Amino acid sequence: MSKPLCHSAMLTDLYELTMAAAYFENRFATAASFELFVRSLPQERSYLLTAGLEQCLQYLETVRFTKEDIDYLRRQPVFAHVKRHFFDYLETFRFSGEVRAMREGTPAFGEEPMLRVTGPIIEAQIVETFLLSTLTFQTMIASKAARVVTAAAGRDVVEFGTRRAHGPEAGVLAARAAYAAGCAGTSNVEAGQRFGVPIFGTLAHSFVMAYEDEEEAFRRFQQLFPEHSVLLIDTYDTLAAIEKIIRAGLHPKAVRIDSGDLVEISKQVRRRLDAGGLRSTRIFASGDLDEFVIADLLARGAPIDAFGVGTAMATSKDAPALGGVYKLVEVQTAEGSSTRAKFSEEKITYPGRKQVFRFRDAAGSYREDVIGCEDEKYSGAEPLLACVMRNGQRVAPSPGLDEIRSHARQEVARIPESCRKIRGPQNYPVRFSSTLEKLLRSVRQRMTRAAVPQQETL
Amino acid sequence: MSKPLCHSAMLTDLYELTMAAAYFENRFATAASFELFVRSLPQERSYLLTAGLEQCLQYLETVRFTKEDIDYLRRQPVFAHVKRHFFDYLETFRFSGEVRAMREGTPAFGEEPMLRVTGPIIEAQIVETFLLSTLTFQTMIASKAARVVTAAAGRDVVEFGTRRAHGPEAGVLAARAAYAAGCAGTSNVEAGQRFGVPIFGTLAHSFVMAYEDEEEAFRRFQQLFPEHSVLLIDTYDTLAAIEKIIRAGLHPKAVRIDSGDLVEISKQVRRRLDAGGLRSTRIFASGDLDEFVIADLLARGAPIDAFGVGTAMATSKDAPALGGVYKLVEVQTAEGSSTRAKFSEEKITYPGRKQVFRFRDAAGSYREDVIGCEDEKYSGAEPLLACVMRNGQRVAPSPGLDEIRSHARQEVARIPESCRKIRGPQNYPVRFSSTLEKLLRSVRQRMTRAAVPQQETL
Repeated sequence: MSKPLCHSAMLTDLYELTMAAAYFENRFATAASFELFVRSLPQERSYLLTAGLEQCLQYLETVRFTKEDIDYLRRQPVFAHVKRHFFDYLETFRFSGEVRAMREGTPAFGEEPMLRVTGPIIEAQIVETFLLSTLTFQTMIASKAARVVTAAAGRDVVEFGTRRAHGPEAGVLAARAAYAAGCAGTSNVEAGQRFGVPIFGTLAHSFVMAYEDEEEAFRRFQQLFPEHSVLLIDTYDTLAAIEKIIRAGLHPKAVRIDSGDLVEISKQVRRRLDAGGLRSTRIFASGDLDEFVIADLLARGAPIDAFGVGTAMATSKDAPALGGVYKLVEVQTAEGSSTRAKFSEEKITYPGRKQVFRFRDAAGSYREDVIGCEDEKYSGAEPLLACVMRNGQRVAPSPGLDEIRSHARQEVARIPESCRKIRGPQNYPVRFSSTLEKLLRSVRQRMTRAAVPQQETL
Repeated sequence: MSKPLCHSAMLTDLYELTMAAAYFENRFATAASFELFVRSLPQERSYLLTAGLEQCLQYLETVRFTKEDIDYLRRQPVFAHVKRHFFDYLETFRFSGEVRAMREGTPAFGEEPMLRVTGPIIEAQIVETFLLSTLTFQTMIASKAARVVTAAAGRDVVEFGTRRAHGPEAGVLAARAAYAAGCAGTSNVEAGQRFGVPIFGTLAHSFVMAYEDEEEAFRRFQQLFPEHSVLLIDTYDTLAAIEKIIRAGLHPKAVRIDSGDLVEISKQVRRRLDAGGLRSTRIFASGDLDEFVIADLLARGAPIDAFGVGTAMATSKDAPALGGVYKLVEVQTAEGSSTRAKFSEEKITYPGRKQVFRFRDAAGSYREDVIGCEDEKYSGAEPLLACVMRNGQRVAPSPGLDEIRSHARQEVARIPESCRKIRGPQNYPVRFSSTLEKLLRSVRQRMTRAAVPQQETL
C-alpha cells in the first residue's frame, strides 16, 4: 500500500553537516542523546496528540547520501578545508542509533520528551531537521484535529484541506495525522492510497456550474453514485436547489452546504428534506469551519450530521507552528557519560535522559505527569517513552494507522474533561521530579565552576 | 541540478475524480477555463508575490496515474457503478491544456487571477488540488519573505525554518520561495541542491554543549571553517563567549546571537568585538524573528548585520493560509462558449476569461490594476497573464530562480511605498473593468432567467 518515500539525507540544515565535519575531523567519536519536545503549548491547546513517528522511523531506516549529494557538498565553498575522509564517511552514512518515543496517538504536554535519539553524535545531529519537522508537524495537526473531533461530538469530521496545505505533500501528511486523531477520513486520494485513510468526495461548485441546469448536474451525479452522492446545494440558491432534488425524485446520501448562515439554512434544509420524504438524507456542512464554529453551530441547534474541515485543520491555522526543539541532554565519551544542560537567558533545557511518568486516578483518568530521570521508578505510573528502534532497526513492527487511531481515541478520553474543553481549557498538571531538579542544579554548578577560572583571567 | 519529482495524479481530492467520472460517463466533452486567485489578502499584507509556477508546470508536464493507482481507485466502493472505460481513460490521462500565468516574482493583489487553466474539463479539474496548494503555498511564503526582506533594509536575511515547516518537503519549497523573494539563502541543503539556492550554516547550541569547554568548541569549528565560521555565542553567557573568542585569537566571519534582548546585547557585542580587533566580524541574529521584530531592532539601533528567520517565514505564521480558489469561469461546448459565475451568498465569482492590466505612473511606479476581460485593450498598461503552456507543453524555457529573484526585486520596488510599509500598509488600487462588470450583470440575468420557471412551479 505504501509508496516508497524519498529519504535523502540532504533534507537537513547545513549546520548539521558543518558540525558533523567538525566532529569527524576532530575524531569526536561521542555518543549523544537528544530529546525532542515542545516547551510550551500554543494558546487554546491544553494537550498535544503525538503523530508522525512512523515517518520518522521510515526515514531513519533509509536515510542516505547519494554520490550526487556528496559531489554537491564537496563543491560548496564552506567545505573547502574539509578533507575527503569526511565525504567518504558520508557515502557510508547510516543511522545506527536507538530511538525511544511515545506511541503515536499519545497525549503529550509541554516540556515532555516525545522522542529521544541516542547514537553517534554525527548521526543524531544530521537527522535533527527531518525528525523535528516531521514529528512536530503531524503532532500539531493531530492536536488540532482532536479538538475539532471533540467539538463535533460524535458527528463525522472529514479532512478537506489539501488545497490550502503547505504544499501537496503537507496535505498528505496532514490527512494522515487528522485521521489518527479521529477524523472519519479525508478528501486526499494519495493519503487514502498511501496510508489507508478512508476517502470522501462530494462535488464542487464547478460541476454544478458546468451544466446550464443545476437539476441536470444533480441527476447526472446521483445516477453514477447512487449510494455515495453528496450534492452541493449552495451554488445559486440553496433552498431552490433542495426543491429541484425533491422534484427530480433524487435520493442523495447527503447534501452539502458550503456558505451562508449554517444554523438557519441547515434548519430550513432539514425541514424541507423531511417534508419531501428525504429523512435519511444527511446534511454535510463545510466552509471555513473549525472547532469553535462547529461547537457554536451545534450549541445553536444546527441539524448538521457531518463536517468537512479544511484550512483550519490542515494548517492548524490558529497555531501554525509548535515550537518543537531537539536538545542535547547527554554525551557519552570513553571516559563515561556526562549530562548536558543549557542556561542561556530564558531558555533552560533539563539535563539527562528522561522518562515521562503518567499517573491515573481511581476512575482511570489521567491525573498528573512527572518528567523524571530515565532510571526513576514510580509504582502505579505508566512510563511513556519506549524503545522503538535499536541499532537503526525497529525493535517490533509498528502499529497500523487504525490501531493508532483507536489508541488516540482511548487516550484522549482519559484526559480530564476540563483540559479537553474547546474554549479556555485548563492546564494538565506536569512537574519535574525532584531527582531531575537536583540533577539540573548539579549540572549548573559544574558548568559554572568550569566557566569561573576562565572568567577570572579576564 | 533538479531531482525528479514524484507527480502522481493521486495528489488530488476525491471529488475531482468523482466529477471526472461523471463528466466521462455523460460524454461531457467540454473545454473549460478555471482561474486561480486569492479573494482578499490577509491582515498586514497589501500585496502577494507570486511563486511556485515552475513546480506547477513540472507537475502538469508529468502528471500520471499508474496501474497501481487505478487498481486502488477501482476498489473504492464509491466507484462501484463507474464503467471500466473511465479507468482505461485514466491510464492514458495527460494534461493537454493551456496555461496562462503571471511570471513568478510578480506582485499580485486580491481577486487577480494569477493562473488560468484552459483545457478538457476533466483534466482541468483533476489538477486543481495540486495547483492550488503549490501556487498559493509558495506565493504565501514569498509574500511573507518579501516583507521580512523589506524590514531588513538591505541586510541579509537567511531562511532557517525547515524544522518548523509543515513537513520537510514544505521546508524545501519554502526555502525556494523565500529566496525568490529576496532572501540571501537558506539553511536547507536540499533546497540548495535542488534549486540552486545559496546555503548557509552556523553551529548549534548542541555543538558548544558537546564539548566540556566552550572555547575548545569555538577553536575546533573556526579551524575547519576559517572563512565561513559563524560562532554561536549565547549557549551559556554571551559576553563571556566573546571574551573567549578574542582571547583565543579567533577571527570568525560572524557571531550569532539567538536569545535575549537583541538590541542591548548586540550593542555590547559590537563594542567588545571592535575593542578586541574584530571589526570585520559581523553580528548575525536569530530567534523568533519576523518583519516586525526586525524593523523594531533596526529602529532601536541594533548593530545587526544579518538575520536568520525561521518559523515566522517558513510557515507565514501570522497568516498561514491564503484563501486560494480555483474557479470555473467559462465552458466551451460544441455550441460555443459560455461564461460562468457563482452568486451563492457572499461569494461572487466574476465570469469569463480575464486579464490583469497594470498601469504605471510617470516615474515608473505601479499606479493601478484593472481586472478586465481577456480581449480588452488598454494602451500604456501591461497585461500580466501570459501563455506559458500550450497542449500540455511549455511554450518557452522557464526563467531560472535567480532571474525570478531579480524580477521580484525590481517589481516589488515599483509598488507604491505606502503599500510596502511593514505596519498598516495601504491597499493598492485594483478595480474591475466596466466591460467585466457588464458581463457579470448579463450572466446573472441569464442564470436568474434560467432559474425562474423552476421557482415558479414551486
